[in-house]
Amino acid sequence: MGVRPRVVIIGSGFGGLNAARALKSAPVDVTVVDRDNYVGFWPLLYQVATAGLGADDIAYPVRATYAGHPNIRVRLATATGVDLDARLVHLDGHDSLPYDFLIVSAGSSTTDFGLPGVSEHTFALKTLPDAVRLRNHILTMFEHADAGSGERGALIIVLVGGGPTGVELAGALSELISRNLSRDFTHLDVTRARVVVVEKADRLLPGFSDRSAATALAALVRKGVEVRFGVRLAGVDARGLTFEDGSSLDASTIIWTAGVAASPLAGGLAAERGRGGAVVVRADLSVAGHPEVFVVGDLAAASGRDGRPLPQLAPVAIQGGRHAARTIRRQLSGRPSRPFRYHNHGIMATIGRREAVAELPGGLHLAGTLGWVAWLVVHLFFLVGFRNRIVAFVNWAWNYLTWDRASRVILDDGRRITDRWAP
Amino acid sequence: MGVRPRVVIIGSGFGGLNAARALKSAPVDVTVVDRDNYVGFWPLLYQVATAGLGADDIAYPVRATYAGHPNIRVRLATATGVDLDARLVHLDGHDSLPYDFLIVSAGSSTTDFGLPGVSEHTFALKTLPDAVRLRNHILTMFEHADAGSGERGALIIVLVGGGPTGVELAGALSELISRNLSRDFTHLDVTRARVVVVEKADRLLPGFSDRSAATALAALVRKGVEVRFGVRLAGVDARGLTFEDGSSLDASTIIWTAGVAASPLAGGLAAERGRGGAVVVRADLSVAGHPEVFVVGDLAAASGRDGRPLPQLAPVAIQGGRHAARTIRRQLSGRPSRPFRYHNHGIMATIGRREAVAELPGGLHLAGTLGWVAWLVVHLFFLVGFRNRIVAFVNWAWNYLTWDRASRVILDDGRRITDRWAP
Repeated sequence: MGVRPRVVIIGSGFGGLNAARALKSAPVDVTVVDRDNYVGFWPLLYQVATAGLGADDIAYPVRATYAGHPNIRVRLATATGVDLDARLVHLDGHDSLPYDFLIVSAGSSTTDFGLPGVSEHTFALKTLPDAVRLRNHILTMFEHADAGSGERGALIIVLVGGGPTGVELAGALSELISRNLSRDFTHLDVTRARVVVVEKADRLLPGFSDRSAATALAALVRKGVEVRFGVRLAGVDARGLTFEDGSSLDASTIIWTAGVAASPLAGGLAAERGRGGAVVVRADLSVAGHPEVFVVGDLAAASGRDGRPLPQLAPVAIQGGRHAARTIRRQLSGRPSRPFRYHNHGIMATIGRREAVAELPGGLHLAGTLGWVAWLVVHLFFLVGFRNRIVAFVNWAWNYLTWDRASRVILDDGRRITDRWAP
Repeated sequence: MGVRPRVVIIGSGFGGLNAARALKSAPVDVTVVDRDNYVGFWPLLYQVATAGLGADDIAYPVRATYAGHPNIRVRLATATGVDLDARLVHLDGHDSLPYDFLIVSAGSSTTDFGLPGVSEHTFALKTLPDAVRLRNHILTMFEHADAGSGERGALIIVLVGGGPTGVELAGALSELISRNLSRDFTHLDVTRARVVVVEKADRLLPGFSDRSAATALAALVRKGVEVRFGVRLAGVDARGLTFEDGSSLDASTIIWTAGVAASPLAGGLAAERGRGGAVVVRADLSVAGHPEVFVVGDLAAASGRDGRPLPQLAPVAIQGGRHAARTIRRQLSGRPSRPFRYHNHGIMATIGRREAVAELPGGLHLAGTLGWVAWLVVHLFFLVGFRNRIVAFVNWAWNYLTWDRASRVILDDGRRITDRWAP
């Protein structure tokens, strides 16, 4: 075993997972490092936050992915740094992993743009615990309002950022409120609830066409979502948001989906950094001066054939992970690297039941029910390989047929999420 | 509305839920008080703890149960006390609820018998967060052992108490380890793992026949579970357990299923207390001197037709809740109360795949596959009325057919469960 080249993969998101899978039968010893023991199907994370799916429905144990492939090891740890010269990955604790090849797929997080109060008073939606925490909080706010102990803004939910996450969440939240919570809370005037999207730019869905953005906006407005453009935030506190023009908005729930920040690992990988701090990579996704180190997914600032930066999407990470694995195989057999070519299968965002926008290759734009069906087909296709696809599908089908959202349970870990709203 | 009698129900477990359902169309205003917004299907809680089902699979939003019945309100709060003379239920915060009729179904918890260290160093299995916490912890212990950072006893799981919970958990844990974790952890010698049941008495399953107890013991032993009888615990600490004979056992996971303690509410309800502090009730389940106050389920010390105390089982709570509701209806129409008659449909405990013991009325004892089928039928029957029955059934069927346990994900809320075991 020890004489075989050692490949370390940091992160088992879409990039790392597909890199490891592509090395299952390669003559290498692979170690996948991740702080979680599961792979999440992140495109459906907003469904967990809005009680459409249970947390376990979109998580799959990472070890089960590699069962029967003893050349792949899993290490549950956080990678804290990379020593490119010594070829070592440092882990939390005092441990480190030596490597001959390294694939970094550590993803991205949001940035607060230096605005005060964001980390203390807003909810993120990047991880499974994030989604459960958000679901718990929103349901708890409705409970407080029902008990008469809700403060001003108790039923106001603000989403900062009009990208796909903000749009999908806003649509799903408005359906959760108008379809489910309005029935659950018989004695509460649920029409008081507001879902507000605040966006710095003057349109939704950056990366999509103007037409899709307009379609999404119209769909959100039809659902009763308020969308505010050209908003300049000044800060966030326990009461709500304040804006640069001096106005403010009380809100019990502020969800932060704006901005992109690269993993802190980026600093140790390259001097040259791209948008949001991502690592500028060479054509084969390797790092300058280190042909044995690859960066894939959100953490990589890569360019497409047209020279434009590749978007931060699951397909880019999936294809990047596979490309890095292939390149390692080529290097091991003495063949030269090939440049990474991203195959665009389209982008899509769902605004709710029978409402989605999809932009497919060849300029084909879909919207409404047709867009939603396209979105459904693609996501079911991607769920293949995820063991939970059956359960997720049953939940989803039930949800669709009955408008029910069975997971609207407050799974509290013994402590309240925000004590300031407690009665 | 205000002129109708007010019924307050404390607890929406099996007792409270069925009492409220039975009052859906009664000329009363009902308020159900519970600290959780969901009803749990507790007989399958051990499946969540052992990764067979997701947490959301056995939880159903309590408000959805009463949708369309505006005479039933739900109040998310903890009842802290009852003032029998003023007819008030005190809630956490400074609120209180007046009542004309009161049904208390506050359940039970475990007791540590005054042993040192139990609350700090053992896991309970009474709530959904308990189950998720336990699942997280056990999986984390295996991760630490795999990373070489597990201390002595890292893979030793001890269950204190040989009742149904201890037996069901022990069987499911041994299957989780031998069938799933042994494949997940390719590089770890999983045969090092031990599941140990320690029991004060000299047999398992109090309340069951000697024959069933012997069958369960044989099934556990076949699965590799160690069962120790006549064990006298001296205390529990961070390292493991110490016994009265001076010996000790290192263990990273100690699960406490022993003893029964009544809800603290019992103190305010009656002077006379039965086994485990339960409230001694009259034949119609009302409290002495207060025909308008009923205690049902685990909190009630009621007797069966034969004068023997009724067991703490879901069917007793279900039937008790319905009886209290019926008695309120009778009182409102001027009819006298009737005594509660418990209809015994049998008791059962599952030890694992195709292994269960069931004791049905008429002296019919089932074991092995037949007992397991009986257990399955009864639990599927009870799951009817739970919206998640489809998902739970799919998960379960998958689990059975493939030996898979898809929920073995460590859903960590950002903090480690037990820092002492961290590397």
